[in-house]
Amino acid sequence: MKIKKALGKQSVLFENKVYIMATASVAGKKEGEGPLGQCFDHVEEDPYFGQLTWEKAESKMQEIALELVLKKANLKAEDIGYLVAGDLLGQLIATSFGVARFGIPFFGVYGACSTMGETLALASMLVESGYSKTALALTSSHFASAEKQFRFPLDYGNQRPQSATWTVTGSAGVILTSEKGEYNRVSGRKSIVITGITTGKIMDYGIKDSMNMGACMAPAAADVILANLRDFGRKASDYDKIITGDLGYVGSDILKQLVGKEDINLDNHMDCGIEIYDNSIQDTHSGGSGCGCSGLVLSGFILRKLCRGDYKRILFIPTGALLSPVSFNEGDSIPSIAHGIVIESE
Amino acid sequence: MKIKKALGKQSVLFENKVYIMATASVAGKKEGEGPLGQCFDHVEEDPYFGQLTWEKAESKMQEIALELVLKKANLKAEDIGYLVAGDLLGQLIATSFGVARFGIPFFGVYGACSTMGETLALASMLVESGYSKTALALTSSHFASAEKQFRFPLDYGNQRPQSATWTVTGSAGVILTSEKGEYNRVSGRKSIVITGITTGKIMDYGIKDSMNMGACMAPAAADVILANLRDFGRKASDYDKIITGDLGYVGSDILKQLVGKEDINLDNHMDCGIEIYDNSIQDTHSGGSGCGCSGLVLSGFILRKLCRGDYKRILFIPTGALLSPVSFNEGDSIPSIAHGIVIESE
Repeated sequence: MKIKKALGKQSVLFENKVYIMATASVAGKKEGEGPLGQCFDHVEEDPYFGQLTWEKAESKMQEIALELVLKKANLKAEDIGYLVAGDLLGQLIATSFGVARFGIPFFGVYGACSTMGETLALASMLVESGYSKTALALTSSHFASAEKQFRFPLDYGNQRPQSATWTVTGSAGVILTSEKGEYNRVSGRKSIVITGITTGKIMDYGIKDSMNMGACMAPAAADVILANLRDFGRKASDYDKIITGDLGYVGSDILKQLVGKEDINLDNHMDCGIEIYDNSIQDTHSGGSGCGCSGLVLSGFILRKLCRGDYKRILFIPTGALLSPVSFNEGDSIPSIAHGIVIESE
Repeated sequence: MKIKKALGKQSVLFENKVYIMATASVAGKKEGEGPLGQCFDHVEEDPYFGQLTWEKAESKMQEIALELVLKKANLKAEDIGYLVAGDLLGQLIATSFGVARFGIPFFGVYGACSTMGETLALASMLVESGYSKTALALTSSHFASAEKQFRFPLDYGNQRPQSATWTVTGSAGVILTSEKGEYNRVSGRKSIVITGITTGKIMDYGIKDSMNMGACMAPAAADVILANLRDFGRKASDYDKIITGDLGYVGSDILKQLVGKEDINLDNHMDCGIEIYDNSIQDTHSGGSGCGCSGLVLSGFILRKLCRGDYKRILFIPTGALLSPVSFNEGDSIPSIAHGIVIESE
């Protein structure tokens, strides 16, 4: 059998095309007020999404995103072969309670804020290798449930350093399919195809500052970019954009230094965490973060640019800091991971 | 393209054989004293595995298991195409800190105690579809880190009801490969092949008792068994054993009732949670549980029976209760999931 990924490499170039059939984005109020607010399918004013707890609010957000993406694809839950999903919360409760009633064969994954990348990677492999005609990648994060779990209760009103990022309240769902079809949001435009993936390794530079996730994650993003360019024999400029998930201003600077050491210039770099808020008026400091950050920006903005032909080929790299309140309180470092997805318009 | 899993089905029959190349099992003292104690590769007397915290102990256990399975397969970390791994702890810290230094392209998954099934399912698909010649499925659980996270600190000395299971301290690693080779533990015996998988759905019967995981998980196990038999057109007796992960005595009884309603008789049922301890002398009540439970019994016992030819074909179904201390304390139910792996000797 022909092996698609040689040992020592981290990337796979797909032989079969994996089309993005539909996406949906559900955002919170603050995200709706940001520079990309007009791009999202659904902006919810109520931070509780009509529920009684922050966790249930996040589950409701995933449920809305899943329903919406099915509707946009004109599919029913039983038309989806696999659901690959996850979130930031311990034991993935936002996901479990949000998706249970749909009854789709399910793989739960944890990749912290890289989850949009991990779910897209696995879901696209399931489609590319013919396990199913369709698969759905889904993720979410919620500012309040994340702060409660990882840092301080909101009521405590703690001060946030300038290196801190703001966890995005948002959920995004992406339906992948092996059959060519138009990206159904902007009809008559280009198709969008996932053409390859680069799987990340856990990186740990020993950083212990839970208020500086960008610094923790930059090495993982750098590793994926270098591996992707090396494995595919590409230059950074072969991509219209190299888009990281949520490094923010602090992490993006570190990323550029890290890849700069390998003589790679990231002039075409973009970071979803920088794009999603306007720090000058939204007080978000280093930028946005969370699984929902790269999810919303992918679904609402990046794929739109691709289907309009503004971008021909991008490298999308959600980044995740594997922060745990338990290991953090025990004095451990914060390892990180990132996953690269090559997306092209045709 | 030919689609391997038809819509409405949960199972895939593999076209290409996925061989189990090597396995390793690392167990705690209590597991070493149980009926299967002689089967495990490494039994550690120190519950801290030489570390300072329970979480680090569990990470160390995964590290030992990973090193051991590489050694048994005569491979290096760079020979492994993908690592698919997870554990019970929030943000998978046992895994992250245990495997980081090996630098293997990594997918982190969360399936609670079904993780040995979820990791084997995804890892076997990555091998079967030719993404890599090798992949490693790894998981762990530790009694003390799990009790600390999900229930009470050990020092509290709470009483456990008879329906409670005992979280197994153990880690198991399984290396899969597309190339035929002997299961290297018992040389000269039969090869062991994963021939198909059945992917579970999240099931929620509304049970809220965190001291009765067996009842929470039985519906998920029943769903996977029924889906597997239906999808493959098999009878229960087409398997030498149908082996659940950690339903224990309580959950196994419920499982038999649930599948009995469909006129299916599970005379050939075995539960790893029942096998791993001797309740009459080890005070483990309903049985063992945790990712390590089905992992240890698979690695130490079941695969040995397969490679000796005692079993020709089994259905292995690790079961997971998606319990979270947060959702539990907020009064929510405990959803569950299970994943089925068909393993045959040849």
